[in-house]
Amino acid sequence: MKLNDFRSYYEPLIQQELLDQISSLSIPDSLKESMNYSLQAGGKRIRPILLLAVMHELGHNHPDALKVAAAVEMIHTYSLIHDDLPSMDDDDLRRGMPTNHKVFGEAVAILAGDALVTYSFGLIARLENVSSDDKVQLIDLMSVSAGAEGMVGGQILDIEGEEKKLELKELEQVHRLKTGALLTFSILAGAILAQAKPETIMSLTRFGEHLGLAFQIQDDILDVTGTSEELGKTAGKDENSEKSTYPGILTLPRAKEKLDYHASEALAAIEGLDGEMALLKELTAMIVKRKN
Amino acid sequence: MKLNDFRSYYEPLIQQELLDQISSLSIPDSLKESMNYSLQAGGKRIRPILLLAVMHELGHNHPDALKVAAAVEMIHTYSLIHDDLPSMDDDDLRRGMPTNHKVFGEAVAILAGDALVTYSFGLIARLENVSSDDKVQLIDLMSVSAGAEGMVGGQILDIEGEEKKLELKELEQVHRLKTGALLTFSILAGAILAQAKPETIMSLTRFGEHLGLAFQIQDDILDVTGTSEELGKTAGKDENSEKSTYPGILTLPRAKEKLDYHASEALAAIEGLDGEMALLKELTAMIVKRKN
Repeated sequence: MKLNDFRSYYEPLIQQELLDQISSLSIPDSLKESMNYSLQAGGKRIRPILLLAVMHELGHNHPDALKVAAAVEMIHTYSLIHDDLPSMDDDDLRRGMPTNHKVFGEAVAILAGDALVTYSFGLIARLENVSSDDKVQLIDLMSVSAGAEGMVGGQILDIEGEEKKLELKELEQVHRLKTGALLTFSILAGAILAQAKPETIMSLTRFGEHLGLAFQIQDDILDVTGTSEELGKTAGKDENSEKSTYPGILTLPRAKEKLDYHASEALAAIEGLDGEMALLKELTAMIVKRKN
Repeated sequence: MKLNDFRSYYEPLIQQELLDQISSLSIPDSLKESMNYSLQAGGKRIRPILLLAVMHELGHNHPDALKVAAAVEMIHTYSLIHDDLPSMDDDDLRRGMPTNHKVFGEAVAILAGDALVTYSFGLIARLENVSSDDKVQLIDLMSVSAGAEGMVGGQILDIEGEEKKLELKELEQVHRLKTGALLTFSILAGAILAQAKPETIMSLTRFGEHLGLAFQIQDDILDVTGTSEELGKTAGKDENSEKSTYPGILTLPRAKEKLDYHASEALAAIEGLDGEMALLKELTAMIVKRKN
């Protein structure tokens, strides 16, 4: 199956799963609207698609896969809502639309984020077709990937990094935590649901780590080369804020080389696996070539 | 055992468990300091003590009880950090000390809260002496109690309630969610770890619900009758902000009657249980009589 067909098939299902989850809640309207607003704002759904693509390539269908994919997307969305806050990155636009706090106010935005991250753990705990052992493993990994030793820690390093020039190693660490950890979790979650063997999980982890870095390098490159219209957010923001980036540290051509390096390492990691892994290869190519 | 002895024994252990958990993390210093600052700021540790008291009264020791107690205290602490933010209740003092964002800045405070709630789920998932089935049940209940249908939803209703006069029923709903849900979870978590029978769990749930309301009514009464020094936070804040409170809706004498009603209903709920329940009775009396 081609990636475009795969995405066209799954994106509406992911969207619907997110809607169904939130509409099942008996909660104040403002909170529900705020949670839905950011969940429905679209985006590329890379994490859910990665999870589902891993399962597809491992030849495994799982009735709860969409729910786990929704949990990961909720964590990602909560992180965007909090990152956009005035005290953090202070962004007014996200995916071409006003950010959550611009529409609902800061208090509701913070709480919508809190609600999403809290809900995602319960969603995994309530899966109907996953063993308790596997749920516990998913929750443990999700907590580490999303928390202080993962995404939240990365956001702290990112904020602190704004006030100084980072070395390449430090910048890589920011991205490993801030973006890489949850991307890798998405891949691992697919592998766990597919009952993959430990060697397969190790290869996929390596794939995820390189893919995450490639993703972030391309993000930095796009901030230099893209337009605000293409990006759906303010272009040139990193440069204007003197934030450390790959092009800033390495120059643009060498940042592109670095991008190619991680993309090819990602591909090498899944080379020996059973199955074609065609979707994962296409996803890697898409991340390298993306315009937003 | 007397409640005072019980608390004197367990409070340092709870404190140490919280310290141990955070010091085990490889995370940026600022994040670690911010998480520790609020966790170590003290407070009454009512939720951990409730959990441990329930286990004690059910005659059950559990090697992981302190870890679950720590997880609940982390959730409670995260909620305080976020509630104190300028866009929420805008409090400068908490337990007599500057609030987290006053010391570490808003961005770090938000992320410390995010890290605490995320970590607490992983902490439960990694318990060594609890079955996966029980972990899953604890995580499900904790997610609901702390999330949009529990504590977070209550905070939304609380904020929205500031702009209008609430009816008694509405005020009660705010408190059931904002304070009651996590208090009740603490009690349930103790019962689950103690392998309590369903009837016992139902009685303890009813106990928790009334105790939670009693707790909150006393909070409102103290805001009217207490001094800032006793409370460790600004007294008279509710009245000055025209916030709906029990004394405000009912008058002070009738709020005190309501407090006594819920306290006696709490006691009635545990009357028929095996064992003395002496600690739970004392805890109820303490909550009614507390000065902060």
